[in-house]
Amino acid sequence: MGYNESMIEGRNAVLEAYRSGKCVDKLYVLDGCQDGPVLTIKREAKKAGSLIKYVDKQLLDNMSETGKHQGVIAVTAAYDYAEVSDILDIAKDKGEDPFIVLLDNIEDPHNLGAIIRSAHQAGAHGVIIPKNRAVGLTATVARTSAGALNYIPVAKVTNLSKTIEDLKKEGLWFVCADMDGETMYNLNLKGPIGVVVGSEGEGVSRLVKEKCDFVASIPMKGQIDSLNASVAAGILCFEIVRQRMQ
Amino acid sequence: MGYNESMIEGRNAVLEAYRSGKCVDKLYVLDGCQDGPVLTIKREAKKAGSLIKYVDKQLLDNMSETGKHQGVIAVTAAYDYAEVSDILDIAKDKGEDPFIVLLDNIEDPHNLGAIIRSAHQAGAHGVIIPKNRAVGLTATVARTSAGALNYIPVAKVTNLSKTIEDLKKEGLWFVCADMDGETMYNLNLKGPIGVVVGSEGEGVSRLVKEKCDFVASIPMKGQIDSLNASVAAGILCFEIVRQRMQ
Repeated sequence: MGYNESMIEGRNAVLEAYRSGKCVDKLYVLDGCQDGPVLTIKREAKKAGSLIKYVDKQLLDNMSETGKHQGVIAVTAAYDYAEVSDILDIAKDKGEDPFIVLLDNIEDPHNLGAIIRSAHQAGAHGVIIPKNRAVGLTATVARTSAGALNYIPVAKVTNLSKTIEDLKKEGLWFVCADMDGETMYNLNLKGPIGVVVGSEGEGVSRLVKEKCDFVASIPMKGQIDSLNASVAAGILCFEIVRQRMQ
Repeated sequence: MGYNESMIEGRNAVLEAYRSGKCVDKLYVLDGCQDGPVLTIKREAKKAGSLIKYVDKQLLDNMSETGKHQGVIAVTAAYDYAEVSDILDIAKDKGEDPFIVLLDNIEDPHNLGAIIRSAHQAGAHGVIIPKNRAVGLTATVARTSAGALNYIPVAKVTNLSKTIEDLKKEGLWFVCADMDGETMYNLNLKGPIGVVVGSEGEGVSRLVKEKCDFVASIPMKGQIDSLNASVAAGILCFEIVRQRMQ
């Protein structure tokens, strides 16, 4: 599969990773540490949009593989991220209407991997995840995607609402999956489309939902609240496949 | 959630569990042990259809909570199993065409739990799993089902092909999910139906597949082989929902 998630430890190594443009998903910093080099690293991390976690020494010691973390450990992506424009280019090259899956609040790597797999199998041109709070392209995500990560680009953006606005200018319509929506079978999901899927607990955040043109719901017959997030995403993506095949 | 998977250890306790009719999913026996009481337990286990695993002393010692396993540990179901007839009765009581999900070769508890959840949300009346090789209703399955296990009956049968034959006499049609089938959107999936789903690696076994009336495939656009088993099951179940709503 060729993935290789890795941890970079120690102040110089982490700073160099940022300066060389390496994509750092997450930065663990010793809580309360105000040393100059650590402040510089934090500045770089904010610029790069890494998720910063403040943790205690015990946790850093446990994570560390070298034993020499000096208060900072960076976790880099197993795969390189794409740009949103790359995704649009792929759709254009194929002569197809863009079909993009956007994920909000998906923090479980198994769900992320399964959704990337389903998106690829449904013929989506790419997946977009937010920088903040979301899980990155870790080895677990790559494994759960069953190889799909080798074929479908994943872009990471700072602000999902802003990205939706930009993509609307490119002609995309946005549908968000939520319980209070219109039954998905009754919506027209053909044409250039972005599908927004949230987590099981929180769903899609309000700001993102407000940007969507439609809210689609999967008709539930049971006595519990919801479906597994990756199952729901799969069902919605394949409803789009069905409508596009007609 | 009220589930409580438990282990029963020691010869008398395990034998009593069988004699009282308790559902033992799995029996761990010390490999090579030919003592009379152990032979009696193995006979009861075969009668009850438990999965028997022959293991070494080290493993039994590690599993044991009491330290007194005497060469046998039984794992009982977290939930009680239903009978196939119970599932048909539920459909009848609701005045609906039976809709049953049958699982072949699903050994991952997370997949089993997610499929039980999807089946319930799609309005299926029950789930049928084979005694042999399948995972039982463990605490992990219950948790992953997100509570659905409290609402949808799960039956365990010795021979899936035989059960399919019996259910055909009750008027059910059987559709099996496989890559080489007819695109599911083109099949008529209304009416009394049994959906057979296999594992990602092995799919549905040949004997079971031969009993099915249709083979349905989910149209794949990507460059990898398949979808996650629980995602595929969810997509197929909700195609049935769509057709039934028309």
